[in-house]
Amino acid sequence: MRQIWKNGEILPETEGKLSIYDSALLFGDMVFEMCRSFKGKHFKLRDHLERLYRSIKHVRIPLEMTIDQMEDACHEVTRANKFEPDDEHRLMINVSRGTLPIYRDTGDLGSNVIISDFPLRWTTAGMGKLFDTGINCVIPSQRQIPAHLLDPKVKNRSRMHYLMANIEVAQTKGENNWPLLLDQDGFITEGTGCNFFIIDQDSWVVTPEGRNVLRGVSRDFVCDLTECWKEQNIEPYDVYDAREAFVTGTPFCMLPVTSLNGVKIGDGKPGPIFTEALREWGKMVGVDIKAQIQAWDKGSVEGPSPYKF
Amino acid sequence: MRQIWKNGEILPETEGKLSIYDSALLFGDMVFEMCRSFKGKHFKLRDHLERLYRSIKHVRIPLEMTIDQMEDACHEVTRANKFEPDDEHRLMINVSRGTLPIYRDTGDLGSNVIISDFPLRWTTAGMGKLFDTGINCVIPSQRQIPAHLLDPKVKNRSRMHYLMANIEVAQTKGENNWPLLLDQDGFITEGTGCNFFIIDQDSWVVTPEGRNVLRGVSRDFVCDLTECWKEQNIEPYDVYDAREAFVTGTPFCMLPVTSLNGVKIGDGKPGPIFTEALREWGKMVGVDIKAQIQAWDKGSVEGPSPYKF
Amino acid sequence: MRQIWKNGEILPETEGKLSIYDSALLFGDMVFEMCRSFKGKHFKLRDHLERLYRSIKHVRIPLEMTIDQMEDACHEVTRANKFEPDDEHRLMINVSRGTLPIYRDTGDLGSNVIISDFPLRWTTAGMGKLFDTGINCVIPSQRQIPAHLLDPKVKNRSRMHYLMANIEVAQTKGENNWPLLLDQDGFITEGTGCNFFIIDQDSWVVTPEGRNVLRGVSRDFVCDLTECWKEQNIEPYDVYDAREAFVTGTPFCMLPVTSLNGVKIGDGKPGPIFTEALREWGKMVGVDIKAQIQAWDKGSVEGPSPYKF
Amino acid sequence: MRQIWKNGEILPETEGKLSIYDSALLFGDMVFEMCRSFKGKHFKLRDHLERLYRSIKHVRIPLEMTIDQMEDACHEVTRANKFEPDDEHRLMINVSRGTLPIYRDTGDLGSNVIISDFPLRWTTAGMGKLFDTGINCVIPSQRQIPAHLLDPKVKNRSRMHYLMANIEVAQTKGENNWPLLLDQDGFITEGTGCNFFIIDQDSWVVTPEGRNVLRGVSRDFVCDLTECWKEQNIEPYDVYDAREAFVTGTPFCMLPVTSLNGVKIGDGKPGPIFTEALREWGKMVGVDIKAQIQAWDKGSVEGPSPYKF
Amino acid sequence: MRQIWKNGEILPETEGKLSIYDSALLFGDMVFEMCRSFKGKHFKLRDHLERLYRSIKHVRIPLEMTIDQMEDACHEVTRANKFEPDDEHRLMINVSRGTLPIYRDTGDLGSNVIISDFPLRWTTAGMGKLFDTGINCVIPSQRQIPAHLLDPKVKNRSRMHYLMANIEVAQTKGENNWPLLLDQDGFITEGTGCNFFIIDQDSWVVTPEGRNVLRGVSRDFVCDLTECWKEQNIEPYDVYDAREAFVTGTPFCMLPVTSLNGVKIGDGKPGPIFTEALREWGKMVGVDIKAQIQAWDKGSVEGPSPYKF
Amino acid sequence: MRQIWKNGEILPETEGKLSIYDSALLFGDMVFEMCRSFKGKHFKLRDHLERLYRSIKHVRIPLEMTIDQMEDACHEVTRANKFEPDDEHRLMINVSRGTLPIYRDTGDLGSNVIISDFPLRWTTAGMGKLFDTGINCVIPSQRQIPAHLLDPKVKNRSRMHYLMANIEVAQTKGENNWPLLLDQDGFITEGTGCNFFIIDQDSWVVTPEGRNVLRGVSRDFVCDLTECWKEQNIEPYDVYDAREAFVTGTPFCMLPVTSLNGVKIGDGKPGPIFTEALREWGKMVGVDIKAQIQAWDKGSVEGPSPYKF
Repeated sequence: MRQIWKNGEILPETEGKLSIYDSALLFGDMVFEMCRSFKGKHFKLRDHLERLYRSIKHVRIPLEMTIDQMEDACHEVTRANKFEPDDEHRLMINVSRGTLPIYRDTGDLGSNVIISDFPLRWTTAGMGKLFDTGINCVIPSQRQIPAHLLDPKVKNRSRMHYLMANIEVAQTKGENNWPLLLDQDGFITEGTGCNFFIIDQDSWVVTPEGRNVLRGVSRDFVCDLTECWKEQNIEPYDVYDAREAFVTGTPFCMLPVTSLNGVKIGDGKPGPIFTEALREWGKMVGVDIKAQIQAWDKGSVEGPSPYKF
Repeated sequence: MRQIWKNGEILPETEGKLSIYDSALLFGDMVFEMCRSFKGKHFKLRDHLERLYRSIKHVRIPLEMTIDQMEDACHEVTRANKFEPDDEHRLMINVSRGTLPIYRDTGDLGSNVIISDFPLRWTTAGMGKLFDTGINCVIPSQRQIPAHLLDPKVKNRSRMHYLMANIEVAQTKGENNWPLLLDQDGFITEGTGCNFFIIDQDSWVVTPEGRNVLRGVSRDFVCDLTECWKEQNIEPYDVYDAREAFVTGTPFCMLPVTSLNGVKIGDGKPGPIFTEALREWGKMVGVDIKAQIQAWDKGSVEGPSPYKF
Repeated sequence: MRQIWKNGEILPETEGKLSIYDSALLFGDMVFEMCRSFKGKHFKLRDHLERLYRSIKHVRIPLEMTIDQMEDACHEVTRANKFEPDDEHRLMINVSRGTLPIYRDTGDLGSNVIISDFPLRWTTAGMGKLFDTGINCVIPSQRQIPAHLLDPKVKNRSRMHYLMANIEVAQTKGENNWPLLLDQDGFITEGTGCNFFIIDQDSWVVTPEGRNVLRGVSRDFVCDLTECWKEQNIEPYDVYDAREAFVTGTPFCMLPVTSLNGVKIGDGKPGPIFTEALREWGKMVGVDIKAQIQAWDKGSVEGPSPYKF
Repeated sequence: MRQIWKNGEILPETEGKLSIYDSALLFGDMVFEMCRSFKGKHFKLRDHLERLYRSIKHVRIPLEMTIDQMEDACHEVTRANKFEPDDEHRLMINVSRGTLPIYRDTGDLGSNVIISDFPLRWTTAGMGKLFDTGINCVIPSQRQIPAHLLDPKVKNRSRMHYLMANIEVAQTKGENNWPLLLDQDGFITEGTGCNFFIIDQDSWVVTPEGRNVLRGVSRDFVCDLTECWKEQNIEPYDVYDAREAFVTGTPFCMLPVTSLNGVKIGDGKPGPIFTEALREWGKMVGVDIKAQIQAWDKGSVEGPSPYKF
Repeated sequence: MRQIWKNGEILPETEGKLSIYDSALLFGDMVFEMCRSFKGKHFKLRDHLERLYRSIKHVRIPLEMTIDQMEDACHEVTRANKFEPDDEHRLMINVSRGTLPIYRDTGDLGSNVIISDFPLRWTTAGMGKLFDTGINCVIPSQRQIPAHLLDPKVKNRSRMHYLMANIEVAQTKGENNWPLLLDQDGFITEGTGCNFFIIDQDSWVVTPEGRNVLRGVSRDFVCDLTECWKEQNIEPYDVYDAREAFVTGTPFCMLPVTSLNGVKIGDGKPGPIFTEALREWGKMVGVDIKAQIQAWDKGSVEGPSPYKF
Repeated sequence: MRQIWKNGEILPETEGKLSIYDSALLFGDMVFEMCRSFKGKHFKLRDHLERLYRSIKHVRIPLEMTIDQMEDACHEVTRANKFEPDDEHRLMINVSRGTLPIYRDTGDLGSNVIISDFPLRWTTAGMGKLFDTGINCVIPSQRQIPAHLLDPKVKNRSRMHYLMANIEVAQTKGENNWPLLLDQDGFITEGTGCNFFIIDQDSWVVTPEGRNVLRGVSRDFVCDLTECWKEQNIEPYDVYDAREAFVTGTPFCMLPVTSLNGVKIGDGKPGPIFTEALREWGKMVGVDIKAQIQAWDKGSVEGPSPYKF
């Protein structure tokens, strides 16, 4: 049985629940982070936690727990779980404001922190082949909510619109379709759980300005891997004209994007800059990222949908 | 101990929980309704349920339960709870898509329905005096999310922006401040949990077009009470020039709005049309609405904040 | 061989061409109308021509031909063509500004008017079954261009965005998918060649305000057929909640819309108000509209795409 | 008689026509390029063709012809035409999707490619003096269509709004008025057939970001000519405060802009950076650009309008 | 010497000044009204004053003077001025917040009220002929500021954008050009000092919704004169298709609009509904409005510009 | 008695008035500058005057006075005033278009220039403590007017919206609240009289792009003081994550911003980069800026409001 950390205690995973009177369920009022390990060691955990604390500050949850205590709790729950030797840990850290005061008769007030830990392979199921085929990004009619109305830089749980985009794109013909959201100006923002990059004709690695997107930890890491990168507004025209494209996300690190709306990008295959960056990343963490995910896929049932966060 | 209805069973209220792997907590992906009784009899329950099923359809939760079964469940949970004789029932019906498939190891798949029942007085605590003083609506910088990005007509749980508006308005000087959201065109939409009305200089009862608002059951009921009402875009200018203003919401039915941003509306007191409509409403349901809420307030502690939904 | 009318002459259809130096091909600078006959008699021809002259006025083509002369020309070309007895005439009237002055060496200056005439069945091929199944409207990411930038009320040939919408929707799973465009506010505008209607829960026939749409001749005619109709902003939410929906267009008159984005409208079948209106229309023009189109479909090859204007 | 290249054949210019059933005339669905020669040698032809193929890809015309074949065809038609010794060639390459399938009875299906060739002096008639006087840019009420609705980076024929801007600006008092379009944010985009530049107070050559503009071949060339250039949002305020301004376009290369809305830029005369860049350009192609155009103007009738594309 | 009323005193007109330290000059922070007499009797004075007090309330000037005192002051200053027998009175009532507190050393604090009175003919100079020729409304690139940023329903002095529109339209060819502002949606709002009306094809008198316009006293009066009027969004397309158009404004009451952007409306002459309404108006106030203004024009110098407020 | 310069004459300050018939009072049609001295010597006077002349050019006031004459006038009025030895001069230069021609009977036509001079301490009253406490920036619902509707880069007097923002923020709880305006995209623009800066996590000094803001003289000066600065779009998220923040304005030079909407920035105290820059500034002008302002505050009454321009 997997264990979770909840408000200071190690508990069975089945205790990973929140009351319907919690602000998290009443308002989508919860911030969170998800991270992963390489060879069992958490990757960029501190970066994730710093972003978590920025989210907490932004939505003004009066949390008393310090970032160091949070980091300790992450390690504690990781130690409490014994996975298969070839597994990696995936942590999900949820912080809610807690029961709304008017419902105080139903339970204690105060923020709730739940850290759960489960095998990373859950969230990469069926993705192995995508390293070879690439994904097809599809622009749905659902647009990104602008940051001044609901800020995607604050990693929060009011994200119904991401789910609606997922449902919409599931209606598209073909395989390996992932939604890619435009903002109100027609600029590309992000996938519903990943950041987007192109390599332009001058070999610059370009990603949308950090405005209507989550400023991803993997996004930052990939930028550090390359010499020439920049943030810039990107339009579909730029993608059609790009040499390569890819997305980044914590569970899979990087995946090639080989077409947009069914139109090939470059030669329609994973490109050399993507391939080199992924290789480099793997080298730095001591894991062949693609091989690991493809190995997990062997003998397992296909995941139910391509977007899984 | 209060009882809830959950996926077919009557259970103690403490079972009113959802897993952190439920789409409700992952995406704010839950639709809901809240209703109330008068003298123990549910008011407009069917109307609430019809709106619930519209929400379910819109977000495409594949629920097998019919609306008739849902109505039966509501009555069942109501019967299971014994409140003080002077209490009224407040039902909260939550419908989630359930555990996301990639987390299927943590629990069963399939939608979750939870109907809870608690004393209405929880949600009206501290409101008694407002029938006499009126509330001061305050326009925060947080704007309503437009319906084509996240539809407020679908009563869903991705409503972090409502909470942010509440927090912002809590910084305003004075008492009895309730947020009133503008849309991107500067039109008034709704409070964070209530519909807004003015009575204009020609004695028309006017409420914003049913676009960037929840189309409230109380909103409809009040319109039926009056002879001359219309939907129309309303701007702050129109409010300053109105004779009266009020809000509607299920728990309190109607409350007078006596100022906007601190500027008096009319003579700054609850107006005759409001008063008459509330009286009429009370007559139809056999309850003196204002007296009931004011009676509950006596001897109780003040509620923690003026917005309680 | 079919004949056309071109600048005063009856010519073979192969002469229905315009120079690449014509403003029509340089700027998409051409206005047009398309109409149809019932039992060989043109339907609402004058209404179409009046709209044509409004378009000409709006884009300021200095045409000397009067509307009466235009009407005569329409009749002249109709007489010049002999179709199968069960055919109907379809006229396409194109008016361009003519060769741009700087290209005057390549041909004469002055506006060009071409009226062509062909069997209506071309444009209804494969539509017969849709009267029974209904169409599935699909909202693409391509939005309508707002009228103040390029006015759809002016029936003109700069409509690349309609074609892009068609291409996009062709990528959707399932059959009978027709694009339905939203405007920048998220209001439904029109299909790429048809007007959209719903019947709401109060049995009103509702169509979008005549703003970001072509004000269709069939649209007007259907409104005249019903007692209770109104123009109003319509959102997807309203469609999901409608009893029925349909589109109107000159070639097919009316077609039922039985789903939006794959979600059933009403019971997912052509509704009684649609059926009655179509029957009524047929009675007024002496043609069983559905039967005629279905008869044409028998024995013919399926049309290449569902949108054919 | 001038010759054109059409779908593989050299034909008289009078065959440069398209059917009214071609998607080009039905939807403004045609992409194109125009280039010019210096001393009879095509300038940047390959760059134009690469942009053409990006346009084709974007609008998904299934063209089988390769870019090399296209280049050969351009040379072929050039050889087929004998102009005056002092003339330059102007090529116009049009690519349409061809007859819409429902009209297949009227002609063959498949894309149409027409390359025409004519004396450049047609498109520069009357411009000679502008090298000395400069042009007055005028901002019309017609705004640029944003790229996510109709992308100006795709050089296409749905450009009625450019013609409407031309008509509007023709109503302005004074001479040498050229339209300059703002986008919805009030940023300067482009003229209706030219790119816009300023030289700011720090001597940077600045041109609008490549978003709501055609990314012009001349635009790129001029940037390469200067050491300090950048893309940046430009507002009218910046123009009024600029030292110089100019436009670029294939036929005339560069023209000075000496006022905006009648307000002088700098000292109201062509500036030194413009003058030097034009001189440099001429040196690189072996032609005195200004002298050539002014020579053509002598003895010819004045062109009918200042904007000629 | 003309007299004014200033803060309770009758003073010579030369005292009609405000300090540069007054909020009126520092922030454009002054609200105002202008009215006129017929045969020396003020027309709708109370309506103007009620609007003035709405403006005062909106911008929160803490004025102690009551509306009745304001009305008395208007009559007092009118009595103090002796004009030619054929003159009419024009009152201008300005209310400022007064000297900003940090400048209190330069003068007294507290609001300033100045009522001036001068011959109406000043503001109608040169307009006489327009009753016969009509005006040409011109849409400038300057758009109306939306009401949620600066409300035109509050008649205030921050109206630099109106002046900029006037300057822009003065650059248009032809005569009798008056600016007509679009809002951000492309809807017609108002002239820079007048309200706009059309008579549509069904003979309805239509004026823009009272949103981004001053809700004019003359506007209301004209609506009362006609049986069939409505507020509705109006686009240029609607104007080109209208039977008639006109503007209303206090000094001239009504003027025919015979073209928009140089395109004729109807037959390009003042229409029968306009003519009848003006006649009716004149009858009700006992003045031949057109004749009076034309008489003033005779022998006087032409006014310097067509817009005079 | 203080003296002013008005249209060429030195006059008592009480003559610093403009007629109600001046375009400045009719349209908010006046441009201006305000500057200050250090040790009696004007600081960046020429920069202010150059911006003034850009404003004059933009709004097209036909002023004949040259910038050199304007500079002389500034010095002349400064010499005419004798202040306390510890005072600094504050100049306010107003340029209006003058009496509107239709009101020419009330006074002379032609532009009016008024330069007034008063002790700087007026405008810094009560600010001394803010150097230690910092200010709390508050985002009101009032948004900045976009530059294409009314350009804040043109320092003009149509700024009612700034005053409305001031009034709105005065309703916020707590002390030292200053308004900070967002634009329509949710980007931070400026305070109502100051420019805004953050120091980001990489120690860059960042200020909003020079688009919807006054391009402040102090803003430029501070940028010159630091090595690493850039213009960039800034959102509230960026401010919450900043190390420091501050505002710049002519009278106080720089003030620390220690919180936004009540949420601490950094450690909630004036930061080292701010402190060093202010010290550096003081060194360059030979004045301890903070000490000077704090000295003025001692023994004086508190200023009436925190925003004083």
